Amino acid sequence: MEDKVQIQEAIKTQGEVVRKLKSEKASKEQIDEEVAKLLELKAQLGGDDGKHQFVLKTAKGTRDYNPKQMAIREKVFNTIISCFKRHGAETIDTPVFELKETLTGKYGEDSKLIYDLKDQGGELLSLRYDLTVPFARYLAMNKITNIKRYHIAKVYRRDNPAMTRGRYREFYQCDFDIAGQYDAMIPDAECLKIVHEILSELDLGEFRIKVNDRRILDGMFAVCGVPNDKFRTICSTVDKLDKMSWEDVKKEMVNEKGLSEEAADQIGEYVSMQGGKDLAERLLQDEKMSRSKQACAGLSDIQLLFSYLHLFQVTDKVVFDLSLARGLDYYTGIIYEAVLTQAGVAPVATEAQNGPPGEENVSVGSVAGGGRYDGLVGMFDPKGKKVPCVGVSIGIERIFSIMEQKAEASSQKVRTTEVQVMVVSAQKNLLEERLKLVTELWNADIKAEVMYKKNPKLLSQLQHCEESGIPLVAILGEQELKDGVVKLRVVASREEVDISRAELIAEIRRRTTA
Amino acid sequence: MEDKVQIQEAIKTQGEVVRKLKSEKASKEQIDEEVAKLLELKAQLGGDDGKHQFVLKTAKGTRDYNPKQMAIREKVFNTIISCFKRHGAETIDTPVFELKETLTGKYGEDSKLIYDLKDQGGELLSLRYDLTVPFARYLAMNKITNIKRYHIAKVYRRDNPAMTRGRYREFYQCDFDIAGQYDAMIPDAECLKIVHEILSELDLGEFRIKVNDRRILDGMFAVCGVPNDKFRTICSTVDKLDKMSWEDVKKEMVNEKGLSEEAADQIGEYVSMQGGKDLAERLLQDEKMSRSKQACAGLSDIQLLFSYLHLFQVTDKVVFDLSLARGLDYYTGIIYEAVLTQAGVAPVATEAQNGPPGEENVSVGSVAGGGRYDGLVGMFDPKGKKVPCVGVSIGIERIFSIMEQKAEASSQKVRTTEVQVMVVSAQKNLLEERLKLVTELWNADIKAEVMYKKNPKLLSQLQHCEESGIPLVAILGEQELKDGVVKLRVVASREEVDISRAELIAEIRRRTTA
Repeated sequence: MEDKVQIQEAIKTQGEVVRKLKSEKASKEQIDEEVAKLLELKAQLGGDDGKHQFVLKTAKGTRDYNPKQMAIREKVFNTIISCFKRHGAETIDTPVFELKETLTGKYGEDSKLIYDLKDQGGELLSLRYDLTVPFARYLAMNKITNIKRYHIAKVYRRDNPAMTRGRYREFYQCDFDIAGQYDAMIPDAECLKIVHEILSELDLGEFRIKVNDRRILDGMFAVCGVPNDKFRTICSTVDKLDKMSWEDVKKEMVNEKGLSEEAADQIGEYVSMQGGKDLAERLLQDEKMSRSKQACAGLSDIQLLFSYLHLFQVTDKVVFDLSLARGLDYYTGIIYEAVLTQAGVAPVATEAQNGPPGEENVSVGSVAGGGRYDGLVGMFDPKGKKVPCVGVSIGIERIFSIMEQKAEASSQKVRTTEVQVMVVSAQKNLLEERLKLVTELWNADIKAEVMYKKNPKLLSQLQHCEESGIPLVAILGEQELKDGVVKLRVVASREEVDISRAELIAEIRRRTTA
Repeated sequence: MEDKVQIQEAIKTQGEVVRKLKSEKASKEQIDEEVAKLLELKAQLGGDDGKHQFVLKTAKGTRDYNPKQMAIREKVFNTIISCFKRHGAETIDTPVFELKETLTGKYGEDSKLIYDLKDQGGELLSLRYDLTVPFARYLAMNKITNIKRYHIAKVYRRDNPAMTRGRYREFYQCDFDIAGQYDAMIPDAECLKIVHEILSELDLGEFRIKVNDRRILDGMFAVCGVPNDKFRTICSTVDKLDKMSWEDVKKEMVNEKGLSEEAADQIGEYVSMQGGKDLAERLLQDEKMSRSKQACAGLSDIQLLFSYLHLFQVTDKVVFDLSLARGLDYYTGIIYEAVLTQAGVAPVATEAQNGPPGEENVSVGSVAGGGRYDGLVGMFDPKGKKVPCVGVSIGIERIFSIMEQKAEASSQKVRTTEVQVMVVSAQKNLLEERLKLVTELWNADIKAEVMYKKNPKLLSQLQHCEESGIPLVAILGEQELKDGVVKLRVVASREEVDISRAELIAEIRRRTTA
């Protein structure tokens, strides 16, 4: 009963919070959240009274996956995992939460989006924000200096959800990373090969992989006259070029970040450049750019990268793009991002109010990204020992959205089970016979179902097959039992044929293995 | 810097907490936890100073899975998922956290073990405690009245971890449930069939599946003179019979729960009974037991269950055991639990201080359990509409532990990748040729690797194959390139044979598909 009093007090307090927010004309979202909390508290009280007043929903920004979505998810995962395995990757798993301090100081401004667990006595914990920091923690903790691993798991961000555009608070990441001290650009090139393979196999339409290097960006900033301490913040502004026009980006640089107009214009010239190996070559000759040692190192590596990409047969989709910046702080070398370029594939790009830019190639958003981060593991090592890493993360939620839309649009039904045959009876009182037969099938590793009714109607049994796409029906009737056969019905053609019990399993296998 | 001041203050406060606990002679564990918190706070400060003083560990009661553990986990999951699919199950997924109120009032005393998330503004959330309550919430929310689904995912309990015995705070559950209004005992029997199939296929040694029914237990309590309001608490005590002797259980009933000695003795007689269909028949004739309508309903269903189990060919392992009670509140009918009975398979049963009972059949702990819960979905429905459910949960962590031990003990190496062939060079300056060849292989869906070095030593390339169990090596040298062949080396036998480039892929496939 103490609990009840506590809840009642919490309701009172929460009621005041809501009233205050309303009087202050707070944002609708803020008020909604507090009202939801109030309702929940009230529901808790209601629940105790035996009433059912609770809110029946999943947490904000999260969703259930129904069987159809799971079938699509499984297909996508299979494609991705096959590719990772083809390239010889192992897999690891880490807990969904980490010590809070493990995540501290790794995500810059985005740290505010981390979910913390309540202090219930014991360690202070947070839900993982990505798979890269736990991976670095794993390497340092186990003193691993060489590994090629993939990790597919959910991560958590208290972001503003935009679920119609595939942005959730709980979402999957599919990461592939290569850790180890190797010769330049070979593992980096393999990461791009993997992106190329996965996006091709998923058949999502045209795509492009943009490549740049943090050293080129920093070198460019230096030669354009950006003060050292403004590199990171100017880099974040450049990162917005895929959503904002250059004019707006320049405005932000000059008005908000205090950059000189001259420096901004010089940057503007560079970030409009796109090309291949030839562009890297040209920039190495560029009077200004070549003054930066860093930029030159990056440009030489881009050249080397392209030579390996050529051997990997993926240069058709890769473009060296000086406007690519990427948000995360921890990148130290090559960075890349894959975007789908086919307009109309999915409405995931159009930002709420901005509206899409009216270009020929409307980008529908990034579906993969990554880069080199040589310093992260060192942040966890007691002696700061570095383990060079390069990796890629597949943006699986956006891919799910697209695949789901494709499935909706297509006339083909998504099957949610793999049942090969349904065992049915044509007359009453044959439950025992059905159970006996389905046991035979299960024991022979045939995927089979039976209705959990003593005397189901033949029609309703057949309807179940139609609805769930079961290709075959094994029909038992008194005549069949007498003759020692089963009537095998092909659902699609309605063709029926008597098969002897001894041959049934072989016949089902023959008809259901593609 | 404000942050820093806050942390320093927190350190001061936390230091006082620790001192207070020590002066109060609090439990070692409690003190340790608070000290850990203090160290973390200090580490946070240290981190800011560029020092690396943080604790490099996973959260208490959790673990990473390394590639070898993941390979075993994948194998176990494949076996289990194949079985679920063979029985026509769909799969769903739900978020890792639920609204706190969704979990409220579902777990009785164990509710204190639920992980809550910190209130960061917005909804009050908790990590899921099992998969059954989210499943019931999913059914009610989507008004689903019929589904056969499996769900494999992690759940969270702030329990006292005992990791050597496979008890973690983050662990997997593998649930299979059938929801729907069906004829009695048919889906229930299928759940037992599934347990039988999975435990047989995993090859964990001898096992036994105990079966009982909540209605029989309640009826038994009634006819033995247990007051109505003590059914649940006496049931929890009976549930301890697998770990405690009858004498101790009786003591708890009489001394702690206030039951009369006479009632306890009567219960003692019943709970020592084990058998099959015949025992159910005998108890239906039992003068006392037959006075309970509930018990009779349960006993008739046990009879029916055994007749279906006979058709499913699984009666060899199933035993009707009146001492089986199971902890959870929500069961309403049949309940069951599978235990491994082979002594010495795994040291997971011996409770810390109690020591195992010295029986012939030393139970090494439950590896699966479940039952019927017809009321749970109704708790979520606004109108209280019920959806009958029966299901089983596979205790996968204990199975992992056993499989890991078996792998340790066996001489066979666990492979953590599926690489079929490693592309190596015998001389220097052949990186380009290696990359070209590995590209050919990848494009033909061959799982292949190459070393990320310009000029790796042949020996170190071959060593990598030995270590990671790669069966084939494709060796390129100047002579091979001139001849248009690849030298294919079988790692196990060291046999080498020249294969023409045109035939290489077919040859690798031929040699690596079992």
